[in-house]
Amino acid sequence: MPLVVVGSVALDSVETPTEKRENVLGGSAVFFSYAASYFTPVRLAGVVGDDWPEEHTKMLWARGIDTSGLQIVPGGKTFRWSGKYLENMNDRETLDIQLNVMDQFDPVLPEEYRRCKFLFLANGSAVLQLKVLDQCPGAQLTVADTMDLWIRNEPDELRELIRRIDGLVLNDSEAKLLTGQDNLVRAGGAVREMGPRFVVIKKGEHGAMFFSEHETYVLPAFPTAEVVDPTGAGDSFAGGMMGYLAEQGNFDPKTLKQAMAYGTLTASFTVEDFSLDRLKNIEREDLDQRMEEYRRMLSF
Amino acid sequence: MPLVVVGSVALDSVETPTEKRENVLGGSAVFFSYAASYFTPVRLAGVVGDDWPEEHTKMLWARGIDTSGLQIVPGGKTFRWSGKYLENMNDRETLDIQLNVMDQFDPVLPEEYRRCKFLFLANGSAVLQLKVLDQCPGAQLTVADTMDLWIRNEPDELRELIRRIDGLVLNDSEAKLLTGQDNLVRAGGAVREMGPRFVVIKKGEHGAMFFSEHETYVLPAFPTAEVVDPTGAGDSFAGGMMGYLAEQGNFDPKTLKQAMAYGTLTASFTVEDFSLDRLKNIEREDLDQRMEEYRRMLSF
Repeated sequence: MPLVVVGSVALDSVETPTEKRENVLGGSAVFFSYAASYFTPVRLAGVVGDDWPEEHTKMLWARGIDTSGLQIVPGGKTFRWSGKYLENMNDRETLDIQLNVMDQFDPVLPEEYRRCKFLFLANGSAVLQLKVLDQCPGAQLTVADTMDLWIRNEPDELRELIRRIDGLVLNDSEAKLLTGQDNLVRAGGAVREMGPRFVVIKKGEHGAMFFSEHETYVLPAFPTAEVVDPTGAGDSFAGGMMGYLAEQGNFDPKTLKQAMAYGTLTASFTVEDFSLDRLKNIEREDLDQRMEEYRRMLSF
Repeated sequence: MPLVVVGSVALDSVETPTEKRENVLGGSAVFFSYAASYFTPVRLAGVVGDDWPEEHTKMLWARGIDTSGLQIVPGGKTFRWSGKYLENMNDRETLDIQLNVMDQFDPVLPEEYRRCKFLFLANGSAVLQLKVLDQCPGAQLTVADTMDLWIRNEPDELRELIRRIDGLVLNDSEAKLLTGQDNLVRAGGAVREMGPRFVVIKKGEHGAMFFSEHETYVLPAFPTAEVVDPTGAGDSFAGGMMGYLAEQGNFDPKTLKQAMAYGTLTASFTVEDFSLDRLKNIEREDLDQRMEEYRRMLSF
């Protein structure tokens, strides 16, 4: 089943303790789309400037991603993010953000997008996320991501959004900030009480937790010695998860847990190289093979 | 099969964001013994002063723990540790340490202890740990714990110990300190190259990782909203793990993984109250019941 994602499309500059890459393909909606494309057809909505290299669009097409919702602003500049990872490869510092065309992004979805059943609102302003939600009244499963900036700056809009969606995906520090709870089990429960049917708390190298009315569980990250660049891991997690759900066309508890596992494994590939460099070189088969290892790892 | 443990026996004063307890039963060998006693007969060796409340010894007896190796120093004072947990309940600050009788502890094991097949050297000086190891030449499985103090102050003795034991259990920051590796998968591999057949890295609320020649895996902690006092969680983990191995009388890969899971669950009870207050009120049945939930949580 097709999956629609709306979010940032960016050019990233990333510095790790050992390497540096300038102006590589990035953005929450890009990582998400690419990850989800291993499972289901994806329709991407976002905005770029006319400095956007066409090769990036072609790379998305090559994976069957529909970019008819990607607006190109003549004379505009693409959103840029630049960051630096500390020695532990888990903590990072944002060095620079240039919103550019994202600053005035008005998400107007193509007609075909509006009929979607599976919708993901990638990390972005809650005001924009609400605008998108309004355009997809027939969606069966709507899931959003958010971050500290919106928790702090748009608390009311974010609360409204959280009330209206089916699932929220956020990381551990954001869950603590949003709820004031330091224990993640309590924090997850507190977010769920704000409205969504399920909540996923991403813990980076420590895996992800799931909360619904009847279930609380945690799945560890796939252990890897190759962490080259964690940028996009969280978006790839969400892409793998939503992609699998859309592929299966349902979101019962059993499918949701398998989706969490696929999200985990998709992210485990993303961190093995910069940008989409590792993800570009895998097939669905590689994900399924890692899934076998992961299942073996968790059975005793 | 009986299991011998040598380590600290202490009176702890613990402060959490909401409560405070003074002079409660603690120490690495105490938490370890109590946890292991759910699986196998335990023989405890350590030292206390004559300020040691006899009720504590009786409590250990009530679980069948042999304390004939617990030296009581007349006129001496028991080891005391005092610490404070930060809001996140994961980071802690040591407020005070009084080594007292631990300072001159010379571990001389009773004859029956020396014939043990399963030996655990709880957190303590590597010099002492080596002395104990020398007294148990027939042990089939020797596992040790260590901490930053000994990594910094006794690097040569610790290296010798690590070369001679079968397994090392340590926490994530200690593994990084010992190896200079920030990636835990690499750190685990690097510790294993120092000699032991297997290495366990404890990650607190994020679970534990296992490394052997052919296997690397991670098991998440059991998610609990009730974290009252994390003191002794790591020692309880080791106690549950070693207790199960001694009970089974073997340490093949399959048994080791089940032991990791039992260690995880034993620790998940310990943190639910101060000192041994929660562990005191469970039965083996409670561990097995939580094991069922844990297995369900990790299957998809």
